[in-house]
Amino acid sequence: MLKVPDHQVAGHRADRGKLGPLVDDSGRFYKPLQSDQRGDTEVAFYESFYSNTEIPGHIRKFFPGFHGTQIIEASDGSGPQPHLVLEDLVAGRMNPSVMDIKIGSRTWYPEASEQYIQKCLGKDRNSTSVSLGFRISGLKVYQNSEAGFWQPEKKVVYSFNADGVRSALRKFVSSNLSLDPDADPDCLYASTVYGHRGGILAQLLQLKEWFEVQTNYHFYSCSLLIFYDTESALDGLADPKVKLVDFAHVMDGHGVIDHNFLGGLCSVIKFIRDIVDEDNKCAKCEVNLGLKENGFYKSNTEIELDYEAS
Amino acid sequence: MLKVPDHQVAGHRADRGKLGPLVDDSGRFYKPLQSDQRGDTEVAFYESFYSNTEIPGHIRKFFPGFHGTQIIEASDGSGPQPHLVLEDLVAGRMNPSVMDIKIGSRTWYPEASEQYIQKCLGKDRNSTSVSLGFRISGLKVYQNSEAGFWQPEKKVVYSFNADGVRSALRKFVSSNLSLDPDADPDCLYASTVYGHRGGILAQLLQLKEWFEVQTNYHFYSCSLLIFYDTESALDGLADPKVKLVDFAHVMDGHGVIDHNFLGGLCSVIKFIRDIVDEDNKCAKCEVNLGLKENGFYKSNTEIELDYEAS
Repeated sequence: MLKVPDHQVAGHRADRGKLGPLVDDSGRFYKPLQSDQRGDTEVAFYESFYSNTEIPGHIRKFFPGFHGTQIIEASDGSGPQPHLVLEDLVAGRMNPSVMDIKIGSRTWYPEASEQYIQKCLGKDRNSTSVSLGFRISGLKVYQNSEAGFWQPEKKVVYSFNADGVRSALRKFVSSNLSLDPDADPDCLYASTVYGHRGGILAQLLQLKEWFEVQTNYHFYSCSLLIFYDTESALDGLADPKVKLVDFAHVMDGHGVIDHNFLGGLCSVIKFIRDIVDEDNKCAKCEVNLGLKENGFYKSNTEIELDYEAS
Repeated sequence: MLKVPDHQVAGHRADRGKLGPLVDDSGRFYKPLQSDQRGDTEVAFYESFYSNTEIPGHIRKFFPGFHGTQIIEASDGSGPQPHLVLEDLVAGRMNPSVMDIKIGSRTWYPEASEQYIQKCLGKDRNSTSVSLGFRISGLKVYQNSEAGFWQPEKKVVYSFNADGVRSALRKFVSSNLSLDPDADPDCLYASTVYGHRGGILAQLLQLKEWFEVQTNYHFYSCSLLIFYDTESALDGLADPKVKLVDFAHVMDGHGVIDHNFLGGLCSVIKFIRDIVDEDNKCAKCEVNLGLKENGFYKSNTEIELDYEAS
C-alpha cells in the first residue's frame, strides 16, 4: 500500500493528484525519477556512492539506503513511472520534528547552463544562502497531541533572514510554541537533541571531518535533514539524526574538496553550537540557583524545603 | 628613503611612475589609501581589529602590524597623499619566495552595487575561485643566485586551472625550476616549508580554527600571503609565514561565520596537505631505499659503501 509521506517538509508533495514521492509500510520511500538530467544524476550518485569502497561506514550512515529503481504507478495518475527506491528515513517514528536545510551559499555549479545559473543565483541571493551559507527549506515541530505540529507556511520559511533562521533553530527544539508562537522559545530539548553525546552537533562534526578531506563529490542543492522524536525527548529517547538527501545535482569533485558545502556546514554548526552553549550556561545557572540536582529539576516542594533550610 | 617594494607579487605596482605602495628602510610599508569607500574600509578594519580585545594573540600574528595613516609623496608624482602605514612583511629577507592567494569562491558581498557584483562574479567564474574556492594572484620562487626568481607572467597565473594551481603550489617549494620549467617539480622544500612543525600547514590549521568560530568580520577579496627564505631552506631556517593582507572589502560578520573564506581556506589546506603527504611517502621510500638516514641524504660515497657491504 503506497501513500503520501506524512513528514515531508520540503520539495514537491504528492497530495492533490500532483507528482511527488510515496512511501510503503515496509520502510521504503519511492521518489519519482525526474525525466531530465536530474533523475540520471541522482541514480548515478547512489550507484557510485554505494559501490565506492573508500566511503567509511560511519559516513554511509548519513545517507539514505538505496534499493535501485522501480516502475510504479505515479502519484499524479500519469501511469507507471520509474522511481528511485530509497530508505524511508522517518519510518517507525510517530511524530518526528523535521527540518530540511539546503547547504551551500551557491546552489549552481560551473558546468550548468547560463539560464540555470541565473535562476539559482537569484534564489541564493534572495534567501539566506549567500549570507549564511545555507537556507531552511522547511520544518515542522511537534508540540503535543492537542496542538499537533507547529509548521510555518512555505512563504514564511522562504522569507527567513539570519534572525529568522536563528529563531527557527531554537524553536525546533522547543516545547512552548503552541502557547504563543511569538514567545521566547524555551529550548527545552536543546541539550537532548543538539548537544547530547551522539546528538545533532556531534553528528554534524563527524560529517564535517569527512568534508574536509573528501574530493569525490560536490553536493549542489543538497539538503541536510535533521529530525528527532519529540514525544520521547524528555525521556532521553529523542534519537536525533542527521541525513543527507537530494542528489540530483551532485558533480564529480575532480580532486577538490566541496568547499561550498563545507563552508555552509560549518555555518550551521556554529548556529547550533551557539544554542547548545547558551543552554549549557542556563543549565549551570539552574544548578547554581539550586533549581536542578543530579541533572533533574527539583520539585517545588524540594526547592521550598531548601529555601527554608538555608 | 622610500622605494618600490622588491617582493610584491600582486596588486598595483609603484614602478614606472604609477601609483602603488612604497617601503622604507625601517620595515614599514606605505599603501596608498584608495580615495573611494575602499580606503576608508581598510583603515576602519585595522582600527577595529587592533582595538578588539577578543582577538587572541596567536591570531593577531597573522595580520600586518598597523601604524595608522600618514601623508607622504605618492609614487605617481601626484603630490602628498594619505597612505596606510603597515608592517613590511618581508623586511629583512634577502630573496624570499612569495605567493599571493585570494581566498573565497565569492569576492563580492551582498551589499555591494549590482555593477560591482557582476564584475566580481565574472572574475570568480573565469578563474579558479568558483571551482577551488581560491585563486592564485601572483607568485615568485627563488632558485639561486644565477637563475634568480621564477616568476610566471600575470596572464599565465590568471589562466591557471586546478592542475595549474596544484603545479604552482608544488613549484613554490621546488629547487629545479630554472633547469626546465616543464620538468616535474622536485618539492625539495615541501617538508621544511609546508609540513614542518610550525610550517605553512600548521599555521593555516591554526587560522582555520579561528575562522570556525569568529563572527566579527567577513573577509571578501582578501589574500593569504605565504612566503619563506629559500636560501635558508636547506638549513631548516626557511622561516615560513602565513599572513592575511588586503582588507578593503571586509564587512561586519553580523554574528555569522565567514563560510566563504573558511571554505576556501579548507580547500587550500587540502591542496597543501596532499603535497606534504606525498612528500612524506617519498621520504619513507628514500629511507627504505637507504638513500636517507636520520633525516639527511647520505653522500654518494656512503650509499656506495652501503651497497658494497650488502
